[in-house]
Amino acid sequence: MSTKPVLHTVLSPRLLDIYDISNSIVVVIDVFRATSTIATALYNGATRVIPVDTVDKCIQIGKNTGGITAGERDGKIIPGLAHGNSPAEYPREFIEGKTLVLTTTNGTKLLHMALQNGAAEVVTGSFPNLSALCSHLIAQKKNVILGCSAWKDKFNLEDTLFAGAVIERVKAHFTIHCDSSLMAENMYQLHKNDLKGFIRNTTHWHRLAQYGLEKDLEYCVTPDLANILPFYKNGDLIVKNLVE
Amino acid sequence: MSTKPVLHTVLSPRLLDIYDISNSIVVVIDVFRATSTIATALYNGATRVIPVDTVDKCIQIGKNTGGITAGERDGKIIPGLAHGNSPAEYPREFIEGKTLVLTTTNGTKLLHMALQNGAAEVVTGSFPNLSALCSHLIAQKKNVILGCSAWKDKFNLEDTLFAGAVIERVKAHFTIHCDSSLMAENMYQLHKNDLKGFIRNTTHWHRLAQYGLEKDLEYCVTPDLANILPFYKNGDLIVKNLVE
Repeated sequence: MSTKPVLHTVLSPRLLDIYDISNSIVVVIDVFRATSTIATALYNGATRVIPVDTVDKCIQIGKNTGGITAGERDGKIIPGLAHGNSPAEYPREFIEGKTLVLTTTNGTKLLHMALQNGAAEVVTGSFPNLSALCSHLIAQKKNVILGCSAWKDKFNLEDTLFAGAVIERVKAHFTIHCDSSLMAENMYQLHKNDLKGFIRNTTHWHRLAQYGLEKDLEYCVTPDLANILPFYKNGDLIVKNLVE
Repeated sequence: MSTKPVLHTVLSPRLLDIYDISNSIVVVIDVFRATSTIATALYNGATRVIPVDTVDKCIQIGKNTGGITAGERDGKIIPGLAHGNSPAEYPREFIEGKTLVLTTTNGTKLLHMALQNGAAEVVTGSFPNLSALCSHLIAQKKNVILGCSAWKDKFNLEDTLFAGAVIERVKAHFTIHCDSSLMAENMYQLHKNDLKGFIRNTTHWHRLAQYGLEKDLEYCVTPDLANILPFYKNGDLIVKNLVE
């Protein structure tokens, strides 16, 4: 009899160091909108996405690599950068063959924390790449941390719902004794038949919808529209070949 | 038109300092079992409960006050203390007119953090004193932080369910734009008709039920069996007279 690997859900970057992640795949989840945009850019042929935590680094690395610089604060493109955080800005005809240098607050912070805490592997998750992520987690047979990026360390619902969606699909392959995971799965099951309606109740919806981003947010809760696996390697997020 | 006060739910002590609590009533919630035991001891006539964070302090304050020392780790009474954390240990015939000096890990930690962060008022909440707490919160017309003590900073379901029970009862009187509160209310509504069944799925149940504490845990999710309001004043938790 083989022992199943263990899966935990972490609801805020502030709680990450409670867990031993050194033998785990850490899934960075930032549904609105960093990890949805990363999946979309790579699905549409971006060579790589370089996640950076500050605007200065974004500009510098953009210069060094010839990459497209992107980032928003409060729904507006940051002065000095060329593009924003919307997945709709990265269709194939624009992004194919290019490097995207993306600065975000919550998702990038968690990603760097996962690396600093010695994660065995870092990938990113979002509804647009739900199935590719789940296939990978099942195939790897390693411990998993579903890491919600949250909003300035505050719990958020959209990342939690995505964790629940993953758990519903992979739970037969893992040992899960974790109140966060049980809650996430409950919340997903409660709302999965009307995610586009339910997200209108979240604080993040209210924050972004005032900037006219409703279509963006609906895209970000639709499964498998950009179904690849972003995988962190040497500073870049690249597409993981799932048959490797 | 009067503005309603604001209510937030905080899912772990680690997240408390994200919030400005200086004008808020902080409700310390530690359903299994500190705040359930505090309500029960006071309901049964204890003069006061002194919450302390270490065993040494518990013993010292017990000596100084002539109080009953109590505390558990891993479901067993701590050596050097006289009693445990179970509400069943504090019937009226035993506790009436006495001081209880109680050391717990999660609940006491959050209570002291709330004081250090300048909470306007600290009270404790548990299912046994649900109605008394809700009446007080509605009457005070102040901002409220529902503070879940969690388990060694990890999210737990029982404290979250209690926060949801409070929100269901008081929400008409507050402005609530908080994903944690929306989640807590959803989870409570999903499970309120079978709380005693559902808590068997929580990690805390598995931790404590091996010590034969099932009856204790069922008591701790039953509303209004010890319906008073524990109120923090000068180091003591005492009964708040609700008509003050």
